[in-house]
Amino acid sequence: MSCDLLTVPPAAPDEVIALRRVRGFHVGGRAVDLHGLPRKTIETVPGEPPRRSDPNGRYQVGQLYAQHFELANATRQTPVLFWHGGGMTGATWEETPDGRAGWHECFMRRRFHTCVTDAVERGRASWAPYPDITPEAPEHRTLDQAWSIFRFGPQGGYRSALAHAGMRFPIHRADQLAKQFVARWTCNTEATLAAYGELLQHFGRSIVVAHSEGARHAAQLAARMPAAIAAVVLVEPAGAPALDAAAACAAASVPHLVIWGEHFAHSELWRRYRAGADDWLARIRAAGGRADVLDLPAAGIHGNSHLLMMDDNSADLAALAADWVLARVPQG
Amino acid sequence: MSCDLLTVPPAAPDEVIALRRVRGFHVGGRAVDLHGLPRKTIETVPGEPPRRSDPNGRYQVGQLYAQHFELANATRQTPVLFWHGGGMTGATWEETPDGRAGWHECFMRRRFHTCVTDAVERGRASWAPYPDITPEAPEHRTLDQAWSIFRFGPQGGYRSALAHAGMRFPIHRADQLAKQFVARWTCNTEATLAAYGELLQHFGRSIVVAHSEGARHAAQLAARMPAAIAAVVLVEPAGAPALDAAAACAAASVPHLVIWGEHFAHSELWRRYRAGADDWLARIRAAGGRADVLDLPAAGIHGNSHLLMMDDNSADLAALAADWVLARVPQG
Repeated sequence: MSCDLLTVPPAAPDEVIALRRVRGFHVGGRAVDLHGLPRKTIETVPGEPPRRSDPNGRYQVGQLYAQHFELANATRQTPVLFWHGGGMTGATWEETPDGRAGWHECFMRRRFHTCVTDAVERGRASWAPYPDITPEAPEHRTLDQAWSIFRFGPQGGYRSALAHAGMRFPIHRADQLAKQFVARWTCNTEATLAAYGELLQHFGRSIVVAHSEGARHAAQLAARMPAAIAAVVLVEPAGAPALDAAAACAAASVPHLVIWGEHFAHSELWRRYRAGADDWLARIRAAGGRADVLDLPAAGIHGNSHLLMMDDNSADLAALAADWVLARVPQG
Repeated sequence: MSCDLLTVPPAAPDEVIALRRVRGFHVGGRAVDLHGLPRKTIETVPGEPPRRSDPNGRYQVGQLYAQHFELANATRQTPVLFWHGGGMTGATWEETPDGRAGWHECFMRRRFHTCVTDAVERGRASWAPYPDITPEAPEHRTLDQAWSIFRFGPQGGYRSALAHAGMRFPIHRADQLAKQFVARWTCNTEATLAAYGELLQHFGRSIVVAHSEGARHAAQLAARMPAAIAAVVLVEPAGAPALDAAAACAAASVPHLVIWGEHFAHSELWRRYRAGADDWLARIRAAGGRADVLDLPAAGIHGNSHLLMMDDNSADLAALAADWVLARVPQG
């Protein structure tokens, strides 16, 4: 990545956001009918008699939730879609755990139309009954797990608040972060990709800013639907899709930016994910595509975690990402 | 309710919403540590080796999710909090299933600061592992259940799209509505009230617009924390709290508006809920309080369902509710 993008511009003034409208809605999914299950008795209102509840019938499953902020004065007509990582929701992008503006607000202040999503079976997207529809039980993330997976500090470090030196994530508000964690199913990748695909069709052409698991999905869809994606910003992608040369050729028409934080030396998991992403970017470049990497420590910016959109320099990093998008996505 | 409020004012122009900022965050809840559970093996990334997952550790549970829209030109400094009903999320208020503006947008266009919440264990609020933390499994609502509970038509009518005559809910988009349904636990009433109480403390003083189960919670909190609530709009409350005369005295300082749709004759459940709410309003009036009722059919407005914020006249009803709030809540 060229060095000029590392000169952080002055923060946007705290001006009014000229919102044309904001709408939340669901995209994709399918109907499923259940039959032959026993009825249940449910207590609903304290003091009221219990009511019968029949679990048989029609469910809508596999949809995602999207919240679209349409501006009156956008600098680009192409919206920025924010896709969160595994075990998280769109709240990732809204506010840092210590109360600063999230990347969503930073991008709106840079006058992008935005759309923040909750992926299939996360947050407002809802989740299907298991084992009746989804075969498996989900995983719930503990703060203990997150500590090492998000590279705040060594495994087990949460109990002693042991963080990597110079850690930029506001670990004193790790409790607030943990309130964002939601159950995740790992068996729904294709349903998730299908719903994101429908979202891309809904908008016609989009910029995708995606984190971790969401970034892997974004890389996959850049290969499947390159005409629908103007650019992707992959924040700490959790690996890359296993794709062939034809897919790399397709993805090569989509400009890619990958942003990495620090502390890979402590995480074999993340070294493996990063190697997968590096390999994928190499294939895009070999196919003639643009694949920029912003390796923050290599650029002299130290201490960022896996959740760099919540770190203490998150607004500066959002500005770098927004500048890259403005340079890569033509006006209009 | 006086008849002048039934003269619907002209719709607000489609002007730009002057947004100072929008933030999503979590409020309330508690930490829970789990011990002694067996480890699991989880597939996370296709093609990657499975990883070990340890369910023991710290969870944050019982929080709610709040999304606060702060305007630059609000007509009242007191924000309007939107609380959804059982088995739903804040998406209730965002867009109708057939793509019209939700009450949230209607109130923003009337220049209210707003805050849309997901109650404890719904949507972005997240839900706790069961049975390890929450003792029970949740209920998932089917479209078949919703058909009669939401008073669209007779029980079983969904399969033949049999709706009550003149039904205003857009039943041709019932599939889109069903995508909003989320699992509900009925054992978390006190945790939900505690989190809403913390939300009210966060804002200091609020107007609460609440639906169904959320309206019952709002009535309860008007009695518990009357100084924190400037007014409540109870849309089709699912009953009322079982409270004593002292609670009625406390709640009497809070102006109440209750709005009812049609088709109670077909629902013994809703006649019972409504009788409970009527009794509660009578106690507030007996204690000297203001309790207005907008019975839509009695006012000549026919065909509204339990989800009247999604019915074909939803914008007119939002305008009525906003007018009532403006008349009851002083400037400032």
